Amino acid sequence: MSAIIECIPNFSEGRREEIIETIADTIRVIEGVRLLDYSSDKSHNRSVFTFIGEPEAVKKAAFASCKMASKLIDMRKHSGGHPRMGATDVIPFVPVKNITVEECVKHSQELGRQIAGELSIPVFLYEDSASKPERKNLAAIRKGQFEGMAQKLQDPDWAPDFGKPEIHPSAGVVAVGTRMPLIAYNINLNTSDITIADKIAKSIRESSGGLKYVKSIGVMLEEQNMAQVSINMTNYEKTALYKVFEMVKIGAKHYDTDIAGSEIIGLIPMNALIDVAKYYLQLEEFNTNKQILENYLI
Amino acid sequence: MSAIIECIPNFSEGRREEIIETIADTIRVIEGVRLLDYSSDKSHNRSVFTFIGEPEAVKKAAFASCKMASKLIDMRKHSGGHPRMGATDVIPFVPVKNITVEECVKHSQELGRQIAGELSIPVFLYEDSASKPERKNLAAIRKGQFEGMAQKLQDPDWAPDFGKPEIHPSAGVVAVGTRMPLIAYNINLNTSDITIADKIAKSIRESSGGLKYVKSIGVMLEEQNMAQVSINMTNYEKTALYKVFEMVKIGAKHYDTDIAGSEIIGLIPMNALIDVAKYYLQLEEFNTNKQILENYLI
Repeated sequence: MSAIIECIPNFSEGRREEIIETIADTIRVIEGVRLLDYSSDKSHNRSVFTFIGEPEAVKKAAFASCKMASKLIDMRKHSGGHPRMGATDVIPFVPVKNITVEECVKHSQELGRQIAGELSIPVFLYEDSASKPERKNLAAIRKGQFEGMAQKLQDPDWAPDFGKPEIHPSAGVVAVGTRMPLIAYNINLNTSDITIADKIAKSIRESSGGLKYVKSIGVMLEEQNMAQVSINMTNYEKTALYKVFEMVKIGAKHYDTDIAGSEIIGLIPMNALIDVAKYYLQLEEFNTNKQILENYLI
Repeated sequence: MSAIIECIPNFSEGRREEIIETIADTIRVIEGVRLLDYSSDKSHNRSVFTFIGEPEAVKKAAFASCKMASKLIDMRKHSGGHPRMGATDVIPFVPVKNITVEECVKHSQELGRQIAGELSIPVFLYEDSASKPERKNLAAIRKGQFEGMAQKLQDPDWAPDFGKPEIHPSAGVVAVGTRMPLIAYNINLNTSDITIADKIAKSIRESSGGLKYVKSIGVMLEEQNMAQVSINMTNYEKTALYKVFEMVKIGAKHYDTDIAGSEIIGLIPMNALIDVAKYYLQLEEFNTNKQILENYLI
């Protein structure tokens, strides 16, 4: 079975359509990758691309698009609402199938080495690829942004992981990393009382002593007059979807309400939902890789 | 997204390994199909192959293997414990992904027409492909077996769907059809009382007024000293897995016991488990085709 990586590079161009389309075409022509989506934000002046494929093809597409962006985008002329430090700002690798985080890290290192070596763009490794704990957080690496990077690289603590401590004059700096897929999951409550959603959100999130890998806030859905617990899950393998659902259910019951329904925003890996089915059906000895028919097609 | 059919042809040879391997190779060389499994039963003198792929490739592999079997297997010399009427006895098509039953039926008709036309083997269509209700059941078509087929075809009620009403002298007759994937699903009870499993099995199965598309019996697991409800589901899209689970749960509670666990035997289509997750998470507006990441890989 093939190993599959998802790659979601962010480029510092969200306004000039011809540049965005040229980057899209650069990805499309690489055999073995599939461009699933790309979207641009004019006020951020930034575009996000999503593509998937086997590791070698994904690295090839990531490198080609990074190279193309370094030719077409001049950071000295860039302005936009989103923090950024490079023409290609960040390249996350996400393990999707038949590949471990560790293997993904190796591929991200190879890509970083190639970008620094062939394009003379300094590279930071972040998240699961980070070389030290203080580089895990992308925001910490990007602090100072493009304009402050030339000086930041002079600080020995911020020497890049690959390349010389000199920014690329027009393309700046790029971060390459590995992270688990993010699941955006919302649970609607049978109440219009936003304070209940707030309290439940607080009780389940990691930052308030709840479930690890869970971020959560209460949100009011004005149209439906319904309170919602809005959730981001950063590692569904370690904290499963059903745990979040059951915790919110307990919270709702505690406040004399219940769950009206839930929704998944955007894409979700198959296994995140298979794990839910296994839990509720009390499935024993189920081998997802071998027993799901579709896994023989991928 | 590609349409995917699963094909599970049965051949009347389970003893001579060189013939079985030749048939396997005939399937393997067809580009675009993947041979997942094949197994032989010596006492039945019969082999079952499982392969998947896009419709055109699957038809090509089914035809090629049927042709090869008609060259290598002489039904006049065949004996075995399983009812059979042809060298290739039956070719079921199962819609797996991005294809309707109706489309699968069309493909099975095309295959049947080709087998009759090019190999001079008369073809019956069965199950969802059947041309009349009394041909839905394969056992009814096969009644009389190879030895009685020459005469059976003379009966106007049993004129083949494709080809002349004359058996192929050595390869006999073949049935081609479309059916939904079968799910073999067992639920273990926290009791050693087999009569409870029997009663629950009876309460959930279609033949006793239970759930449509569900077959079920009580089974004793001697090693674990545990009673089991053993289930076959013939259409998981119409009768979902969670319905069976919840019905058995209610039955178990009624008899003062509960569910110890469950198991899926062999392969299951992804969607059968995604439907379970959707139900228990109360998921609203979830589009499996668009929101499951892996669906972009198939």
